[in-house]
Amino acid sequence: MAILVQKFGGTSVANAEKIRRAAGKAIAAKQQGYQVVVVASARGHQTDELIADAKEINPNPPKREMDMLLSTGEQQTVSLFAMAIEALGHKAMSFTGAQVKIITDDSHTKARIQSIGAEVLREKLDEGYIAIVAGFQGMDENGNITTLGRGGSDTTAVALAAALGAKICDIYTDVDGVYTADPRLYKKAVKLKQISYDEILELASLGAGVMHSRSIEFGKKYNVTIQVRSSINDIEGTYITHEVPQMEGILVSGATVQKDFAKLTLNGLENRPGNAARVFEVLCAAKVVVNDIIQTELNADKANLSFTVGKSDLLGAKEAIEKVRGKVNYDSLFIRDDIAEVSAVGVGMRSHYGVANMMFKALADAKVNIDAITTSEIRISCLVDLKDANRAYEVVCDAFELNKAADQRTQPK
Amino acid sequence: MAILVQKFGGTSVANAEKIRRAAGKAIAAKQQGYQVVVVASARGHQTDELIADAKEINPNPPKREMDMLLSTGEQQTVSLFAMAIEALGHKAMSFTGAQVKIITDDSHTKARIQSIGAEVLREKLDEGYIAIVAGFQGMDENGNITTLGRGGSDTTAVALAAALGAKICDIYTDVDGVYTADPRLYKKAVKLKQISYDEILELASLGAGVMHSRSIEFGKKYNVTIQVRSSINDIEGTYITHEVPQMEGILVSGATVQKDFAKLTLNGLENRPGNAARVFEVLCAAKVVVNDIIQTELNADKANLSFTVGKSDLLGAKEAIEKVRGKVNYDSLFIRDDIAEVSAVGVGMRSHYGVANMMFKALADAKVNIDAITTSEIRISCLVDLKDANRAYEVVCDAFELNKAADQRTQPK
Repeated sequence: MAILVQKFGGTSVANAEKIRRAAGKAIAAKQQGYQVVVVASARGHQTDELIADAKEINPNPPKREMDMLLSTGEQQTVSLFAMAIEALGHKAMSFTGAQVKIITDDSHTKARIQSIGAEVLREKLDEGYIAIVAGFQGMDENGNITTLGRGGSDTTAVALAAALGAKICDIYTDVDGVYTADPRLYKKAVKLKQISYDEILELASLGAGVMHSRSIEFGKKYNVTIQVRSSINDIEGTYITHEVPQMEGILVSGATVQKDFAKLTLNGLENRPGNAARVFEVLCAAKVVVNDIIQTELNADKANLSFTVGKSDLLGAKEAIEKVRGKVNYDSLFIRDDIAEVSAVGVGMRSHYGVANMMFKALADAKVNIDAITTSEIRISCLVDLKDANRAYEVVCDAFELNKAADQRTQPK
Repeated sequence: MAILVQKFGGTSVANAEKIRRAAGKAIAAKQQGYQVVVVASARGHQTDELIADAKEINPNPPKREMDMLLSTGEQQTVSLFAMAIEALGHKAMSFTGAQVKIITDDSHTKARIQSIGAEVLREKLDEGYIAIVAGFQGMDENGNITTLGRGGSDTTAVALAAALGAKICDIYTDVDGVYTADPRLYKKAVKLKQISYDEILELASLGAGVMHSRSIEFGKKYNVTIQVRSSINDIEGTYITHEVPQMEGILVSGATVQKDFAKLTLNGLENRPGNAARVFEVLCAAKVVVNDIIQTELNADKANLSFTVGKSDLLGAKEAIEKVRGKVNYDSLFIRDDIAEVSAVGVGMRSHYGVANMMFKALADAKVNIDAITTSEIRISCLVDLKDANRAYEVVCDAFELNKAADQRTQPK
């Protein structure tokens, strides 16, 4: 019998009514002939409340104890979820991460899964139970409770799907799939039928946050087909899979725009081995998350080094850079917080020329100035003035026909 | 190094401030040279809230899932408790029941402890940690989470004290010890320095609810010295121990009065083998908890059978008795809900005559009519009119000098 894993996030199980609705989806899948494993997160704002409780007692709580505390949120959801299924007349049993032997390393609050001993799950599935597993948590080899950090429940779901050889891992969210563009900014955006792991990874890292990168990497590694779908209807969502031949005909699968950005530029940085390392070392020590890095040579001795950070990290980045000035020589520090980044992502770029040019031309026609450009194998990003961001995003989406389903678009030459 | 177990109930850990205060007590004990194990209950009304959450989803939730849900309450407390100790600069580590291998049978919601594998606790105590263990919970041999039912955290504490060979098990409560009588009704009541397991068991079953009978039975069986003491001060409490020689000089250790009682009498019950069994079978099936049972013969053929129940069980008891009328013949059913029971308890009764008589004389002098009498080896109980209850209680307390410390009282002849 094929196994289906369903994951419900915190908003999908926030109250009794929502838990009942999610339970209905699990039962429906069972009635379709699947063996069903549900992975659930903590209800609504439970985790935030527990964090507040902890901070009131200890502003800097030991991580092991935080994991002990926070893991109760998911444990509550799964027992309530099992009760809901039983109330609807079906057999269900809930499990903590430890009970289904999700073994992690001992990096509390951001543990990594090392193995899953799914025997108990298989046994209960074979006995006809719908199994409900607490997301986000596991235990280390000494029996300490660990949590998986951000996106942890998605990771649990995909990892269980891999361990059980599930046919599909359904991720229920408050959107009904992955769109070509952000529908709030580009009303013509259309839902994708499918997208590759690599593409969604680029989109995820650019902030189109349907799923956390880590769970997608897990899916890619273990070849788990993931469906992102809505928890409030039964419409088919978007499938995340390995690249398939028909994807090659698609130049750009999606586009994103990010506005909460700042760019720091070290003008006239002395061009010596180790200077860039020193800069990013202090940024790392200051816990600043750096996005893009762009360096260009001015002459044999000097370069301009630019990098972007989230706006909330700007002050920390600035202080770190000023601190390093004694060790690293540069002429001036230039900061822009009125910029945005527009990106286009698609595996088709690999085999087609001219994609970058299409983007630059679209921006030029719209009279949008490009401040900086970075690319990866399947992504092109342009920094533009913040005031131009929405217009730039729209013309780029139009240029790549993101208002049309993939098979309706003009074929690339 | 001697081991001390400290148990804090829900009201003693209801908020951050109270948890900090309790943590201070654990640290103080550590600084006195003890290895300290803390057992904690769920915070304040957490358990009630979780039960409400469950009932909203399933009016009749599976017991396994209830245990999964309710056990999170204690898990939250112990992690917060450990954080509080760390915030005060000492090492602490929290554990679930499963983590310290409290193995129970699989009677969910009222499981019984079968064994405790205290190795991990010993190890952490030897490493200098204060160990905080979730009360009320364990796991069955298949790894399912179980809970111990009413008084469960006390049982966990006493069981751990037994398993670890602890010197004392301190039970922190909102009273500062066990009193000779209820201070709200008998203002002259004095705190007992010590009391035997058997005596407190009789008092507990009579509703003087400092501790649940089950944990006291456990303490008696494994010879654990228990101290009942206050969580808001450092005054020495009452020690519960095996009977010691000096206790023999004390006729009565304590007295109780219970007012939420009703008495049912089957007048003229046909005196046939099996009739009493039939009556209590239907009461058991109706989940009525029966307290005292008194039967007296009227003649060779008929008897009067009386029993007392809590007032909340009266309706259920009445319906059950009326249902059994076809199978059991009796003349009439007589119900009194305007009665109270006054009891005196003391191991000294075993070796001294006249204790019952002292009690009857005190009631007679006060012109209190005695409706019924029952006794055990160390207890005498009289049913009296509810309107006389307070006066009856006071004269009984006075008669046994419960306003004086044990060594100040008149020596029995």
